[in-house]
Amino acid sequence: MATYKILLLPGDGIGPEVAREVSKVLAWFTRAGIAQFETETDLVGGAAIDAHGVPLSEAAMDRAKAADAVLFGAVGGPKWAGVSYAKRPEAGLLRLRKDLGLFANLRPAICYPALADASALKRELVEGLDIVIVRELTGGVYFGEPKEIVTLEDGQKRAVDTQVYTTGEIERIAAVAFDLARKRRNKVASAEKHNVMKTGVLWKETVTRLHAEQYSDVGLEHVLADNCAMQLVRNPKQYDVLVTDNLFGDILSDVAAMLTGSLGMLPSASLGAVENGTRRALYEPVHGSAPDIAGQNLANPIAMIGSLAMALRYSFGLVEAADQLESAITRTLAAGTRTRDIAAPGTNAVGTAEMGDAILREL
Amino acid sequence: MATYKILLLPGDGIGPEVAREVSKVLAWFTRAGIAQFETETDLVGGAAIDAHGVPLSEAAMDRAKAADAVLFGAVGGPKWAGVSYAKRPEAGLLRLRKDLGLFANLRPAICYPALADASALKRELVEGLDIVIVRELTGGVYFGEPKEIVTLEDGQKRAVDTQVYTTGEIERIAAVAFDLARKRRNKVASAEKHNVMKTGVLWKETVTRLHAEQYSDVGLEHVLADNCAMQLVRNPKQYDVLVTDNLFGDILSDVAAMLTGSLGMLPSASLGAVENGTRRALYEPVHGSAPDIAGQNLANPIAMIGSLAMALRYSFGLVEAADQLESAITRTLAAGTRTRDIAAPGTNAVGTAEMGDAILREL
Ligand SMILES: CC(C)[C@H](C(=O)O)[C@@H](O)C(=O)O
Ligand SMILES: CC(C)[C@H](C(=O)O)[C@@H](O)C(=O)O
Repeated sequence: MATYKILLLPGDGIGPEVAREVSKVLAWFTRAGIAQFETETDLVGGAAIDAHGVPLSEAAMDRAKAADAVLFGAVGGPKWAGVSYAKRPEAGLLRLRKDLGLFANLRPAICYPALADASALKRELVEGLDIVIVRELTGGVYFGEPKEIVTLEDGQKRAVDTQVYTTGEIERIAAVAFDLARKRRNKVASAEKHNVMKTGVLWKETVTRLHAEQYSDVGLEHVLADNCAMQLVRNPKQYDVLVTDNLFGDILSDVAAMLTGSLGMLPSASLGAVENGTRRALYEPVHGSAPDIAGQNLANPIAMIGSLAMALRYSFGLVEAADQLESAITRTLAAGTRTRDIAAPGTNAVGTAEMGDAILREL
Repeated sequence: MATYKILLLPGDGIGPEVAREVSKVLAWFTRAGIAQFETETDLVGGAAIDAHGVPLSEAAMDRAKAADAVLFGAVGGPKWAGVSYAKRPEAGLLRLRKDLGLFANLRPAICYPALADASALKRELVEGLDIVIVRELTGGVYFGEPKEIVTLEDGQKRAVDTQVYTTGEIERIAAVAFDLARKRRNKVASAEKHNVMKTGVLWKETVTRLHAEQYSDVGLEHVLADNCAMQLVRNPKQYDVLVTDNLFGDILSDVAAMLTGSLGMLPSASLGAVENGTRRALYEPVHGSAPDIAGQNLANPIAMIGSLAMALRYSFGLVEAADQLESAITRTLAAGTRTRDIAAPGTNAVGTAEMGDAILREL
């Protein structure tokens, strides 16, 4: 039985609760003889600030580097609103992304049939929705320098952020999108603002060239990011794989997630480059730390458990186990088991732990 | 009878068609003895490129400066896809915004009762929706320097855009939002990414301070831009006035517009600072040039006519005339007159010119 090293970073808010359910699932896979998991747990975000004064300790960073996969809960909350910019909870997550080189963020937006009515959109627009946003995660305005606030002579302040992309950064994320599309419905839409931004011009040019040279069998469409946000609301099913930069990806993937009516259900994978047959990876739910419901056994653990399914698939090559876990989630929902966020008349409302148990039973 | 100088810039695609309907309405107001309009017409965007090789001639720019208000149609289309970055159609619009100092872009997102079913969202979520996005329009990543593509030693290219904001720029746009909120439901939401961007940190800090010093009677909420995009889909009616930067405003206002189901109906105003009792202003529909339906008498002229109503209100102080025009639009819709984009069973489908005529009849 193969052994995989996992670093579990539950983080803040509902993070620890949903992470607990993932631990149960990991234990089940080991009992079932599918794989052995060496799981370490560490602090990140506000929890790490409280314990170490920084949102990610060096020890935790080293553990992340040594792991086959990081499972991440969520960070942040009002408790740390006053913390300095450099030490804010989010900085822990951003450092993990950057220092592990996790440039490719895959965010599936799937509308579970049982949940189509929970969407703000009309049922027919979202039923059967299955798109993946491929978001560039280690470049753009998130990390470009200068990034600073300076005080001018007249006492005013001036803040600067810098959006930077190189050809190589764009090529590698576009390749991820094209490769993924080939395994799906073979269509990529690339979103930027080439009518206003030079990074958009280079983005469009580079994606177009890579497509012509290596992926001309895949359908490619260019769309302006503002129009893309509109199209996601108007008719999301027109898309298959949507590739975009770090900041547009942040917004567009949130819109796409919200459309599904299943925000508490959506996992994500952040992947590094393949080196010697392996790649660094972090898996996290798309939802945040939801401090308002933390510690009350109300959170939906499905996004976090679905993130483990992505880890099984992308990091450990346990494709069958991933399928098994995903179909256990679907069956649990179809049976009417629901946490509060997705409750509906006629369904069976349960807490975080009970949802985890129900999925284990389906396994 | 007072005289106002208008520069009409129809632009490309459906721009000329919808501009024609505005001219009819202007003529009506003059015949009715409400005001005299000296209207000049000039080229912008692709039309100006074809005629002069640039997307806005110096003569047109001078006319814009001399006008009391600019009425702008739309620019761009596939015909000019190959034009260089500096001369692309959009550069004409961006230059008008920048050189006229139009820092405040007001984009109302109103769901006309007669059209609530045209929204992708469930009726109850959008019925009665009435929000205004106040978008900063002359700063941020649209204009910051450096903005360039350089070739590196290894042959790769590197593109850079710069997002810059000063305290003063943030204060003046926030003041517009607070003043507007006072005349409405007295609530402002301010959207940024202070968890990732230094401009977001300065934005939040400046809005908070201005609020405490001068607008503490107005409700203020800070929201992360990605979450705001989600909230617009989940429950748009929670907002009244939403203030944000140039790039977030571009995307969020498009999402808001699409929610209403009335994209072809939404006007916008871009306003400069008040100097000697007047302010420079440009009015334009939120929709684009829609080259696919151009020249076929299919476009909806309501966004453009609504933009004139905003001009009557904000630039000419003709508040009654503005009310009169807006209620003529509402009555025309209520009577079931519809262009193709908003057609529904049981309504009366008409073309661009007929819609203009129907509104004139209601006047
Ligand atoms: C927490 C925050 C820094 C993060 C981001 O902006 O990337 C989050 O919004 C996300 O999308 O993962
Ligand atoms: C045409 C384009 C330059 C413009 C923008 O990005 O501002 C448009 O999308 C808008 O929102 O007015």
